[in-house]
Amino acid sequence: MQVKNNYSSDYYIQGILQKDRIILSKAITIIESTKQADERLADEILQACIRLQKNSKRIAITGSPGAGKSTFINTLGKILLDQQQSVAVLAIDPSSSKSKGSILGDKTRMEDLVGNSNCYIRPTASNSNLGGVARNTRETILLCEAFGFDYIFIETVGVGQSETMVKNMVDLFLLLLLPNSGDELQGIKRGIMEMADIVLINKSEEENKAAAKIAATQVKHALHLFAASEKDWTTPVLNISSIQQTGFQELIHKIDAYFLKIESSGYKQQLRKQQDLFWLEETILQELQQAFSSNKNIADLKNKLQKKIIENEINAVQAAKFLVQKFLEQP
Amino acid sequence: MQVKNNYSSDYYIQGILQKDRIILSKAITIIESTKQADERLADEILQACIRLQKNSKRIAITGSPGAGKSTFINTLGKILLDQQQSVAVLAIDPSSSKSKGSILGDKTRMEDLVGNSNCYIRPTASNSNLGGVARNTRETILLCEAFGFDYIFIETVGVGQSETMVKNMVDLFLLLLLPNSGDELQGIKRGIMEMADIVLINKSEEENKAAAKIAATQVKHALHLFAASEKDWTTPVLNISSIQQTGFQELIHKIDAYFLKIESSGYKQQLRKQQDLFWLEETILQELQQAFSSNKNIADLKNKLQKKIIENEINAVQAAKFLVQKFLEQP
Repeated sequence: MQVKNNYSSDYYIQGILQKDRIILSKAITIIESTKQADERLADEILQACIRLQKNSKRIAITGSPGAGKSTFINTLGKILLDQQQSVAVLAIDPSSSKSKGSILGDKTRMEDLVGNSNCYIRPTASNSNLGGVARNTRETILLCEAFGFDYIFIETVGVGQSETMVKNMVDLFLLLLLPNSGDELQGIKRGIMEMADIVLINKSEEENKAAAKIAATQVKHALHLFAASEKDWTTPVLNISSIQQTGFQELIHKIDAYFLKIESSGYKQQLRKQQDLFWLEETILQELQQAFSSNKNIADLKNKLQKKIIENEINAVQAAKFLVQKFLEQP
Repeated sequence: MQVKNNYSSDYYIQGILQKDRIILSKAITIIESTKQADERLADEILQACIRLQKNSKRIAITGSPGAGKSTFINTLGKILLDQQQSVAVLAIDPSSSKSKGSILGDKTRMEDLVGNSNCYIRPTASNSNLGGVARNTRETILLCEAFGFDYIFIETVGVGQSETMVKNMVDLFLLLLLPNSGDELQGIKRGIMEMADIVLINKSEEENKAAAKIAATQVKHALHLFAASEKDWTTPVLNISSIQQTGFQELIHKIDAYFLKIESSGYKQQLRKQQDLFWLEETILQELQQAFSSNKNIADLKNKLQKKIIENEINAVQAAKFLVQKFLEQP
């Protein structure tokens, strides 16, 4: 997307402070831009925004395709907006080819949120690799928090690697499942279950009541089998219906209880600092890898060595050592 | 450990080919050595050994402390030795301070294996980080396979990150649990359950029969909840007793069936090539990281920037970019 850089970083920062959603959008577009010319402006905006951190609740919402994430966010968002809370919704879909369609789909399923002046919906630009998407999303969260949203929802599809990334951006990880008894979990990786702070059995309508209860029991059971988390929180499993709007009072109560707990214990601040240091390490690796793999000579050499490895002619470790040595010797 | 390098790589390679376990041990010590002087010799030995790959069955054996891994390996190893099979046992314990004790403990619990001329037991040197332990173990596997062991067992404690590493070294991943019903899994991370190709409920003695059956059912249930693996294999859950030696015929039958399946489908060869390329990428990252973090100036700068990140003065991404740029500019 073409971005006009006629304005200084002050313009964007003031706009964000004055809760101007159009300027927020422009600022996010600058952050997402891969153009060299936007980099300095992006850095200045971010730099200012991290000093303006408010007290947003950062919540990841994940689940298989079809679990009803968008309808759920619409219902939860609407209830929170009615309670005079402000809400930002960021959608991540690393599978770039699909995302345009699904984001359009999202917006039509978030009809109660679109156009509300206390709500902001933004898909993450997906013309990038997972590392790029993660970075954009994380920086967008920082901008939205500086803007002062009470809730920042990060919606992600629960099938890929994106969850580990998202887990390291949020305070609370919400997993949406369907009341298909055991079959439902077929598409969910075990590691994702482990990340959940709250599990919701969505589509627990009256007519699905029996299946929904069984699903909740099974999930509770599966969760119970595994190790407790360090923050002394037992993951609740709730039956909800986004369409019939049942179960949401209990959900909001659990979300409040969770934040009360992690804020009063100091865990939230500690978690965010841990996450920042995680991103430092992660980005150092990304940058090193990026510099390594964008080196044409090294890439050619690596291709040759990969073939030799597959033919059992050389050892992977020796090949790696040799490649890195060559890379660091380059002028 | 002091290693005398009076011999050429040919000496070690010939010794390995002639199934001399003392020379194998010396060769592994050279591989594990961190002395610059041993590096070239180690490279030559490895280089020769990867061309000598035989058809070993590489099997990871993991489980919580107390699950009875050593006694299990003793019983399974003994049965295989009685069937004229040769067995290597490599023990990994990344928690270096504990490992000396536990390895001594292991050896006394493997009394039927110690001293058998078709068996070789080797703890992985643990005075190193996880990356170093992984590399040593992987290279030791290569040497043991060149030596021609029918089975190579890699024993690891099922509580850390070491399992992901080990998963990428083996053909078959075996998880040992105890018949404590749900409580048993408390110490096992969910991700480890997901890796298992065979789950064993150990200590399923007659007097524990009821609890052991319940545990097996629960584990089957938990496994069933999740996504199927790409190799078209349903993870069996077996009740065994290492002390009473029950359930081992069925286990050996399952192991054989597994290898028959992955060998006839070509999956095993494909898996090993994938693993080699995984280790290439992994080692490139390790080497880049190593070069980065052993740079004193960069380390000092990073310390300063970490403090600024924690104080919300700068953004982690900017700090990372800056550090990598400084690092690559260095002469």
